[in-house]
Amino acid sequence: MKLNMNKEEFRKFLLHAPQSKVMQYIEDVHPVDILDILRDDEEDAQDILGRLPENYIAQIIDEAETEEKYHFLMQFSENKQKNIMEAMSSDELTDLLGILDEDQANKLLARMTEEDARKVRQLLSYEPDTAAGIMATEFICIKEYMNVEETLRYLQANQEEMDNAYNLYVIDSLDRLKGVVSLKDLVSSAFTTSIREIIQTNVESIPYHMDQEEVGHLFEKYGYLTMPVVDHIGRLLGIVTVDDVMQILRDENTEDIHKLGGVGEGEKLNGTLKESVRSRLPWLLVNLLTAILASAIVGLFEGTIEKVVSLATFMPIVAGMGGNAGTQTLTVMVRGLALGELDYKHIKKVLFKEIGIGTITGISIGCIIAVLGYMWEGNIIFGLVIGIAMVLNMIVATLSGFTVPIVLKKIKVDPALASSVFVTTFTDVLGFFFFLGLATLFIHYLV
Amino acid sequence: MKLNMNKEEFRKFLLHAPQSKVMQYIEDVHPVDILDILRDDEEDAQDILGRLPENYIAQIIDEAETEEKYHFLMQFSENKQKNIMEAMSSDELTDLLGILDEDQANKLLARMTEEDARKVRQLLSYEPDTAAGIMATEFICIKEYMNVEETLRYLQANQEEMDNAYNLYVIDSLDRLKGVVSLKDLVSSAFTTSIREIIQTNVESIPYHMDQEEVGHLFEKYGYLTMPVVDHIGRLLGIVTVDDVMQILRDENTEDIHKLGGVGEGEKLNGTLKESVRSRLPWLLVNLLTAILASAIVGLFEGTIEKVVSLATFMPIVAGMGGNAGTQTLTVMVRGLALGELDYKHIKKVLFKEIGIGTITGISIGCIIAVLGYMWEGNIIFGLVIGIAMVLNMIVATLSGFTVPIVLKKIKVDPALASSVFVTTFTDVLGFFFFLGLATLFIHYLV
Repeated sequence: MKLNMNKEEFRKFLLHAPQSKVMQYIEDVHPVDILDILRDDEEDAQDILGRLPENYIAQIIDEAETEEKYHFLMQFSENKQKNIMEAMSSDELTDLLGILDEDQANKLLARMTEEDARKVRQLLSYEPDTAAGIMATEFICIKEYMNVEETLRYLQANQEEMDNAYNLYVIDSLDRLKGVVSLKDLVSSAFTTSIREIIQTNVESIPYHMDQEEVGHLFEKYGYLTMPVVDHIGRLLGIVTVDDVMQILRDENTEDIHKLGGVGEGEKLNGTLKESVRSRLPWLLVNLLTAILASAIVGLFEGTIEKVVSLATFMPIVAGMGGNAGTQTLTVMVRGLALGELDYKHIKKVLFKEIGIGTITGISIGCIIAVLGYMWEGNIIFGLVIGIAMVLNMIVATLSGFTVPIVLKKIKVDPALASSVFVTTFTDVLGFFFFLGLATLFIHYLV
Repeated sequence: MKLNMNKEEFRKFLLHAPQSKVMQYIEDVHPVDILDILRDDEEDAQDILGRLPENYIAQIIDEAETEEKYHFLMQFSENKQKNIMEAMSSDELTDLLGILDEDQANKLLARMTEEDARKVRQLLSYEPDTAAGIMATEFICIKEYMNVEETLRYLQANQEEMDNAYNLYVIDSLDRLKGVVSLKDLVSSAFTTSIREIIQTNVESIPYHMDQEEVGHLFEKYGYLTMPVVDHIGRLLGIVTVDDVMQILRDENTEDIHKLGGVGEGEKLNGTLKESVRSRLPWLLVNLLTAILASAIVGLFEGTIEKVVSLATFMPIVAGMGGNAGTQTLTVMVRGLALGELDYKHIKKVLFKEIGIGTITGISIGCIIAVLGYMWEGNIIFGLVIGIAMVLNMIVATLSGFTVPIVLKKIKVDPALASSVFVTTFTDVLGFFFFLGLATLFIHYLV
């Protein structure tokens, strides 16, 4: 059966069609699509949720944002909450509990099965943005001495645990990970093949404390679908799956883009005015400080500007173009650092390249602006002063665009967050200083 | 066997260990790890490749960047090229041929099996950045009337085609996609279960012409591992896998980040000086134009600045802070548009929110700077002029940060690419205009 309704028709169907029809129909519908409908209208959401089976509700809540999970779950009776939570996956339950206060969390823990509560308590003890914080504990373990047919029969008997399984994990008697058997190899091997023959033993496993962003880059690099998470002695703790990783990478990318644009963490397009002001005003205030610093430099030279007022006209070009060039370099650097592309062996080469870029673009822009300055003021020295200031500032721009992110990374400050403030401070302050300083030096030729 | 060597030891092992040992060892090594070593040293690369089996070389070339593929392949004799290409996957072969000139491409096509050449020719006919352009044609089809045991025996007999299979595709007699059977369901169902019982029929398939970025967002949203690509009458053409999609999303994110930072397409941290200058200079020149435009506004008011030279000192603050606020808004907008988060139903709400942000942050920053201006110049009107100009410019900033990306998207220009030029032009030009214009209006109170 293929979904042939638009969103509105589907909403009406969910609300009014006979429940048996709904049950049959949604079997083939992705929970995310229902989630979309639930998000649109609070009242309808409650009615629709009331008509869905518990295990399907669990799937929807698994897919929901962490803040939504609690909201949805609370719409049900205690008993129904129990059943829904039992069908939810352990990592999502952990995310949910992670944002509740102790009181709320304890109430929910009391409603879980003993096994689930133990799992979730364990998961809550890990740092949320590490491998262990994002792993699920649903996975299937088999033994080396089994053969393919025995394995298949074992899986057939343990169907309900197959939730996210793309791989089977082979562990030894001490729970240590020995290797992996992919379903692909399992289904394409003769029934009598021993697991020993199709096991992959050199399995890249993730230490439980690895940062989630680093985990994401491993998935990107190797194209894995799942990776096992192990503790310090190699015992299998859980698995991380690629779909969770994609969400993480998307959020990390959004965060990096926002930070580069001077927007605080967690601002959402559809968030509230208060949230936005809170995420943006602090950065504007930091920028205000650097703007005041740059203006103070201009203030030092008011005497010079008074004599040659055209300096005020060209001032913003020198500082602004430096800012643009600096932003270019820091953008390439910050992204390269985030993707782990900066090879410290070649760091000198990149540095010299950036100085080269600053010099070449500086001379290009500097020549244009020197001619323009000469034409405006009718004074060749005026043109030279602005041209030389431009070249100098462009070199400062690429140099600081290169250096600032590396230094910030070394002192463990996120380069995406703070680089642009520092770089524009450098280019503004030094841009004004070079230009107005040179003008003061050559003031006799300018008036 | 677990990899217990560092990169240098591993390189030496690959170069000097007996070939039989190398063969055995690399069975468990991810081709990407060998690729890392090959990239380091041209000469060693040739020696190492010479010692690896053809099907493993094919895997390495599959993982390599498109430009590297040809380079690696060309190191082998014609005959070896043939065997390597036969083991490569069709989408990677297509990528490779896509960057060659006709002559080179024809030579390689002549060395492929007839079947491969036909597949690749077909794949080359699709737009490279659509679903069909990134799909692979290796997939496994089964029939509805089979049961689980028959399917398993079929897979066992067609082992070599299981390359990237996580799902089996059920097609009808006209090759139209009827549904999907996941390996997970296959291995956990009793041998006598009919495929009909475990088929999922409501399969989200991708039309072959869908843009690859859109494909990426479908994978992100639903957490799929593979999606089938169909033609206009629903025939199965190929499959897209999540690992390819992750690369695409990563590259699109890099591109967006670079564009927002004013860096042209395809610049790489480890690229050449020439490439970098070529990607950055054009944007600097565009920015120069807008800087000149802004300066021209200042030039209009030289008479006013001559009378009150402190205007030159505060000028950069008004324009710069507007630029910062505009960048914040456009960053949130551009990222929201890229992720498809902007719901046109709520567009008015977002607009009013942005005006609100501009007003609130404008008044906050405006008050601070008004006091500062008053203190610097000892003139309350001077303070008021700069404060009011600041509020006005902050509102312009958030308004243009909101409007520009939407308009660009509507006229099908990439918002990430051009938004920031337009927004900073607005904030610079209008910032100077408000500030110096107001100063001119109230000049009698300022001197």
